Amino acid sequence: KHYAVAVIAGDGIGPEVMEEGLALLQAAAEIHGGLAFETSTFPWNCRYYQEHGRMMPEDGLTTLRQFDVILLGAIGDPSVPDHISVWELILPIRRAFQQYVNLRPIKLLRGLESPLRCKGHADLDFVVVRENTEGEYSNMGGRLHEGTPYELAVQNNVFTRYGVERIVRYAYRLAKETGKRRLTAATKSNGINHSMPFWDEIVKEVSLEYPEIETRLTHIDALSAYFVSCPETFDVVVASNLFGDILTDLGAALVGGLGLAPSGNINPEKNYPSMFEPIHGSAPDIAGTGTANPIATIWSVSMMLDHLGERELGRLVLDSIEDVLAERRVRTPDLGGTATTREMGQAIREQLYRR
Amino acid sequence: KHYAVAVIAGDGIGPEVMEEGLALLQAAAEIHGGLAFETSTFPWNCRYYQEHGRMMPEDGLTTLRQFDVILLGAIGDPSVPDHISVWELILPIRRAFQQYVNLRPIKLLRGLESPLRCKGHADLDFVVVRENTEGEYSNMGGRLHEGTPYELAVQNNVFTRYGVERIVRYAYRLAKETGKRRLTAATKSNGINHSMPFWDEIVKEVSLEYPEIETRLTHIDALSAYFVSCPETFDVVVASNLFGDILTDLGAALVGGLGLAPSGNINPEKNYPSMFEPIHGSAPDIAGTGTANPIATIWSVSMMLDHLGERELGRLVLDSIEDVLAERRVRTPDLGGTATTREMGQAIREQLYRR
Ligand SMILES: CC(C)[C@H](C(=O)O)[C@@H](O)C(=O)O
Ligand SMILES: CC(C)[C@H](C(=O)O)[C@@H](O)C(=O)O
Repeated sequence: KHYAVAVIAGDGIGPEVMEEGLALLQAAAEIHGGLAFETSTFPWNCRYYQEHGRMMPEDGLTTLRQFDVILLGAIGDPSVPDHISVWELILPIRRAFQQYVNLRPIKLLRGLESPLRCKGHADLDFVVVRENTEGEYSNMGGRLHEGTPYELAVQNNVFTRYGVERIVRYAYRLAKETGKRRLTAATKSNGINHSMPFWDEIVKEVSLEYPEIETRLTHIDALSAYFVSCPETFDVVVASNLFGDILTDLGAALVGGLGLAPSGNINPEKNYPSMFEPIHGSAPDIAGTGTANPIATIWSVSMMLDHLGERELGRLVLDSIEDVLAERRVRTPDLGGTATTREMGQAIREQLYRR
Repeated sequence: KHYAVAVIAGDGIGPEVMEEGLALLQAAAEIHGGLAFETSTFPWNCRYYQEHGRMMPEDGLTTLRQFDVILLGAIGDPSVPDHISVWELILPIRRAFQQYVNLRPIKLLRGLESPLRCKGHADLDFVVVRENTEGEYSNMGGRLHEGTPYELAVQNNVFTRYGVERIVRYAYRLAKETGKRRLTAATKSNGINHSMPFWDEIVKEVSLEYPEIETRLTHIDALSAYFVSCPETFDVVVASNLFGDILTDLGAALVGGLGLAPSGNINPEKNYPSMFEPIHGSAPDIAGTGTANPIATIWSVSMMLDHLGERELGRLVLDSIEDVLAERRVRTPDLGGTATTREMGQAIREQLYRR
C-alpha cells in the first residue's frame, strides 16, 4: 500500500522534530514490508510569510487535498503575530478538511513519572476528544469605537447542533469501541449561559443513545482541578475547542510535558486528509540547538498509522517509544537528560527494528 | 469602628461553612476591641427561588447596597439550573457593585503538602487577579433555528477597553505595592483572534507605565501547563473572567483543594460593597454531614478584613489557619482527617485567641 503524506515542517523546532518523525515513518514502512510512504514537503511557515505575504499559496488547500494525510511540525515565529500564522495555516486546514476531531491521549508512558505525587500509570491514561472546527475559535467578531476610551472587541462563540452532535457522537463511539465506561463532557453552563447550556442539552440527548456509558457534565474550572486531584476518574473527555485546548496542555504537563504530547486532527469519515502534529509550539528559544524532544512528533506518527488502519504498526511505534523511555538511557533535556533530538529519534528507530 | 455585613449563606454546605466564618469574625472583633461587625442574614438561595420564583427580591441589590461588605457562602442546588441560580444572584452582585476584581491567592499554607511532587511553599505563592464583570460571561447571545438540525447558539465575548484597562491596571498596581517583580497575563490571541489580541494590546500599553515589572503574555493552554510545571515563576497573574476562573480552580487543586480556596470580589474604589466568598460550590453531596472544610470561608473573612483596612487582623486570622494546619491535629476529611466543620472552625478561633 502506498500513502501520500504532505509534510509541513514549519518553524523553530518544527523541522528538527519532523526529521525524526519522517525517519521513523520510513523505518516503520521498511519493517512492515508492504507499506510505502511518499512524502512531499511544503515550505509553508513564517519565513514563507515574510517572503510571500501569506502563510501558504492561494491554492495551498487544493494541493493538500490530494494527500492521504498531513504531518505538521510546529508553526509560529516572533516576527509574525500568532493570530496570523495560525489563522492562515493550521486553522484553515482543520476547517477546510472537516478535521472536526482533535484527538489527544493523556497517558503516562512507561519509564516516566508524573509530577503528581500520588499518581501512577494506572491513574493517567485517558483521552481527550476536542472539537476542532467551531466554538470559541469562530473567527467572527470585531471592534467598535477604535482608538477611543469606549473601544470594545467582540468575539462570537458559535456552537452549531451539527458541530456539537458530531463531536459528542464521536466521543461516545470511541468510548464504546474502546470499552470505556465513563464519558466526561467539559462545560461552563453556569457562567456562559447561552452556548454552554446548548452544549449540555446535546450531550444529554446523545447520551441517551449510549445508556451503557456513564455521562458526567463537569464545569471546566472544576474539571481542571480534577485533572490534578483525580485523573483516574477519566476515560473519555469531550470538550469544546477552547476547553479541549486548555485541558490537553494541562494533561500533557501531568504526564511528562509538551515534549511528549501528540495529536491527531481527524476527519473520521475520511473524506479529506487528516493531520497529525505534536501539541507543542515552535519553541523559538531552543530552535537550532538540536535539543527538542521528538517524541511528540513520533507519537503523532504512531497515531497517523492508527488512522490509516495500520494499528499494529502504530502500536509498535508507541511500544518502542515506551521501551526507550523505560530504559532511561537516552533522554532529551526536557526529561532531564542530555540526548539530542537526533539521538532520541535514533534510539526509538533502533528499538523499533529490535522489536 | 462598626461595619455592616450582609450575609448570604446560600445552599448546600454554604450555611455550614458560613456559621464558622461568622463565629471567626466575631472572635476577631472581640480580640481587636475597637471593632464591631453587625451582620444581617439574607435567605436568598435556591429554596428561596422555589418559593418566590426568583433568587432574591426585586430590591435585593438596593438592600445590599447599604452594607459595607457582603459575605457569601455557596449557591447552587440540583433543583435549579446553575445558569439561573448564578445569573440571578452572584453575577448581578458582581456587576451591579462594580466588583471588577476577583482576587484569588494561590498559596500553599504551612502544614500542607502540594500534590506536585517537587514543589514546596516557596514555589506556590502567587495571586490571580481575575476580571469579574465582562468578557466571556457577557450574558449576550442566543439561539437560532431551534429544534431543527440547523440550530445554533451564539455567545458573545465582550471585552471593553474600560473593563480591560481597569483590571490590568489593578494587577500592575498590586504587583508594585506588594513588591512583586513579574506579571503574567493569560491570553489566547493565537486562537481567539478578535477579543484576545485586543486584550494583549491593552496589557502591552499598560505595561509601559510599569517598566520595573516584567510582563509576560502567555497563552492559557501553556499557562495551565506552567501552573503544574513551574508555579514558582508566577507573582501576579491577570486573566479574563473565564481564564481566571479556570486558573484559580486549577491553582486551588495545587495547594490543597477547593476546601481551602478563598476569594474577594472587590470594588477597589469602594464605591460599592465588595463580596467575599469561598471558591467552592454548594457541594450537595456532602451538605448536611457537617464535614465541609470551613477554611475557604474563614480565609475569605481574612481577605475581607484586609479589604476593610484591618490588615493586621486579617494577617492574624490567616496565621491562625496556618498554625492549626501545621499542627496536623484537626483536619477535615478533604485534608485526610476526621474533624467536623465546627471542630475545624473552633480550632482556628482558639488559635486566634492564643496568638
Ligand atoms: C458559580 C460560577 C458562575 C462561578 C464563576 O465561574 O465565576 C464560580 O465558578 C466561581 O469561580 O466563583
Ligand atoms: C496554535 C494554536 C491555535 C493551537 C490551538 O489552540 O488550537 C494550539 O495551541 C494547539 O493546541 O494545537
